[in-house]
Amino acid sequence: MAIKLIGFAQSPTTARVVLTLNELGLPYELEGVTDIQTIKTEDFIANKHPFGKVPVLCDDDHVVNESRAICRYLVSKYQKDAKTALIPNDVKKASLVEQYISYESSYYDPPLLKVLYQEIFSKKRGGTTDEAVVKQSLEELEKTLDIYDKILVGKDYLIGEYSLADLFHIPCAHTLYTDTSHGDIFNKRPNVKRWIDNLRERDAYKKTYAK
Amino acid sequence: MAIKLIGFAQSPTTARVVLTLNELGLPYELEGVTDIQTIKTEDFIANKHPFGKVPVLCDDDHVVNESRAICRYLVSKYQKDAKTALIPNDVKKASLVEQYISYESSYYDPPLLKVLYQEIFSKKRGGTTDEAVVKQSLEELEKTLDIYDKILVGKDYLIGEYSLADLFHIPCAHTLYTDTSHGDIFNKRPNVKRWIDNLRERDAYKKTYAK
Repeated sequence: MAIKLIGFAQSPTTARVVLTLNELGLPYELEGVTDIQTIKTEDFIANKHPFGKVPVLCDDDHVVNESRAICRYLVSKYQKDAKTALIPNDVKKASLVEQYISYESSYYDPPLLKVLYQEIFSKKRGGTTDEAVVKQSLEELEKTLDIYDKILVGKDYLIGEYSLADLFHIPCAHTLYTDTSHGDIFNKRPNVKRWIDNLRERDAYKKTYAK
Repeated sequence: MAIKLIGFAQSPTTARVVLTLNELGLPYELEGVTDIQTIKTEDFIANKHPFGKVPVLCDDDHVVNESRAICRYLVSKYQKDAKTALIPNDVKKASLVEQYISYESSYYDPPLLKVLYQEIFSKKRGGTTDEAVVKQSLEELEKTLDIYDKILVGKDYLIGEYSLADLFHIPCAHTLYTDTSHGDIFNKRPNVKRWIDNLRERDAYKKTYAK
């Protein structure tokens, strides 16, 4: 077994896969992308990702792309030998993991990514920040977190125990904390704060974001 | 076993679940939502969907929401007794199903939903159509379909055999075909056209969209 991950080391989507690899205790090699043109070549598009994106996972000769698909693949293939279960074997519990993953990708990530794009990624590419988009996205995120604060009443994690659903929420939250002035948005609500604190305490989190 | 599906009978997300139920040959009761206020009540938000959305599936006492999560649950629980496999048991093949589901939810559904929102859902609510958004979204969809036409060279379906990834693409395409003047976008590319024709030939498709 040789796992190679191609990605932007600092991007939330690559971090999502690294967190999963670390939770499952899997060794891997990170092939960092430093020039965006390398993922727009004919070869990369033909053999790695037809949309010219990362992350891409190469597990020996098996190539799979898109961060959430890669993480599900790693769980399906390697969870049985790992200490941590990220998707429970119980079908009903697993369905709730998928439900919360859908909240993450539908109601949580989109406004958060818009803030990160405006305040970080756009600037890195020489663009400017559209403050109106930031304001509107933060308002949208506040509404989502109001609902999360109710979902998380009396719970350490979304389905009770830690799962892939919690993990998927980490990368954008971490980047908002460390690279913008808006990280406090997670501290205003007691249940969301407890949940985020729990996530940051995990060994895989510390390993992923260690300098 | 008693499966109840709560949803807007004509919406693409509810149709996604109905297609899955029909592919798996599962009997169900559809509780159609006719007034959007019924899914914004305190009771609905506390017991069915905290974001006040449909579809919601009630499988005896197990409640799960969000269309893609519901479909994955139905596959996990009932596929073993069905004639059709929507997610293959083979881990590598299953990872490609998830990869194409991610293409669907990231690059295909968003522009398509914007067109449908502008031309259908907005009008139903007394709004107007923003032609600039329609134009931009159609251009984005054209780019996605250009890439799909390459992915589908020599294939009947995305991973070769029919899967949940193909199924997830159906509802928005069907609505674009039947309720707008833009359905021809799928016929311009030979491999996309063959794929869509294959999807429309399936018994579950015909059953789902029978008048």
